Amino acid sequence: MYKVYGDINSGNCYKVKLLMSLLDIDHEWIVINILGGETQTDDFKSRNPNAKIPTLELTDGTYLWESNAILNFLAAGTAFLPNDPLLRAQILQWQFFEQYSHEPYIAVARFIAKFLGMPDERKQEYQAKQEGGRKALAVMEERLQDSDYLVGERYTIADISLYAYTHVAHEGGFDLAEYDAISEWLNRIAKEPKHVTMEQFTE
Amino acid sequence: MYKVYGDINSGNCYKVKLLMSLLDIDHEWIVINILGGETQTDDFKSRNPNAKIPTLELTDGTYLWESNAILNFLAAGTAFLPNDPLLRAQILQWQFFEQYSHEPYIAVARFIAKFLGMPDERKQEYQAKQEGGRKALAVMEERLQDSDYLVGERYTIADISLYAYTHVAHEGGFDLAEYDAISEWLNRIAKEPKHVTMEQFTE
Repeated sequence: MYKVYGDINSGNCYKVKLLMSLLDIDHEWIVINILGGETQTDDFKSRNPNAKIPTLELTDGTYLWESNAILNFLAAGTAFLPNDPLLRAQILQWQFFEQYSHEPYIAVARFIAKFLGMPDERKQEYQAKQEGGRKALAVMEERLQDSDYLVGERYTIADISLYAYTHVAHEGGFDLAEYDAISEWLNRIAKEPKHVTMEQFTE
Repeated sequence: MYKVYGDINSGNCYKVKLLMSLLDIDHEWIVINILGGETQTDDFKSRNPNAKIPTLELTDGTYLWESNAILNFLAAGTAFLPNDPLLRAQILQWQFFEQYSHEPYIAVARFIAKFLGMPDERKQEYQAKQEGGRKALAVMEERLQDSDYLVGERYTIADISLYAYTHVAHEGGFDLAEYDAISEWLNRIAKEPKHVTMEQFTE
């Protein structure tokens, strides 16, 4: 059985939980507390030398890290990851966009506000994150005005990757009411069969 | 014929040039000057709404962006991208590591020093990038002490992705002499048949 080292409040970890639910993949979830320093121990670094969650442990003891790499691995051969090379590359395009142009703004702003409680010494950084986050949302909005899903007119792991932090972007100061196509897409994803929420797994 | 919109001095663009050389892929290279604002025009944003290079134009007029997505597309079916799902996911693991934990430190430090000429107002940011860059190099060093290549004991697009900015990391203030395994790996990559350098394409 797969083991997932993660924290459900992290969008990156929630991506894995959501796909595993959609695909009925049995797994053990091992809670790792980032704020408590649990990714920085030697024990954890033996699993992921980059000291980040989520980290997936396969049944043979192999570790796989980086949320979007894990999604590509778990979705291989399923409807969430088409075989067509161009569609696969377009999914990756959106996933790399997520990690470079979306997550460092929206997820970090949310982290500062929600989990660190907006300490004075990080308020300036929080403010600076707003512009980049709005740019990323504008790129998504433009795409979703033309298409119900990000790639290939169907629900894929590209949508899962961007849903994770977009659906909680308000916790980082972003007003999603300004983005009609994104708002409709978020509702569409949330209505998919076997959808799970972050809250379901929060104690 | 493919068209690549890029700047060879950008490691992200060089990745595409290097793979296309290794695979003998005929293409037109269209020079885009970032510092001159050429990624920010409406014309360019019609190709890539995220306003970044490299951007690949396929023969049917489809655009694909994000350097690592482009590598996965071009390498499909070649020795640089194995079909095995776990190896593919491990390649993606290193490529997402590159975009999140390596490029934002090493490439940005290099950009500030080499292309912006280290302006006073960005010196503090440059200094702040050093720690994250060293962390990324340490993760690579540990991996390359055990293996000649990042994934599957052969040259793959994971190596291309990380070679791009690592081989010019000294331009961002990183002393590669401290990293023996990385230094040997850089030499190994540079000796591969059909290897090309950034300098070959710089006017």
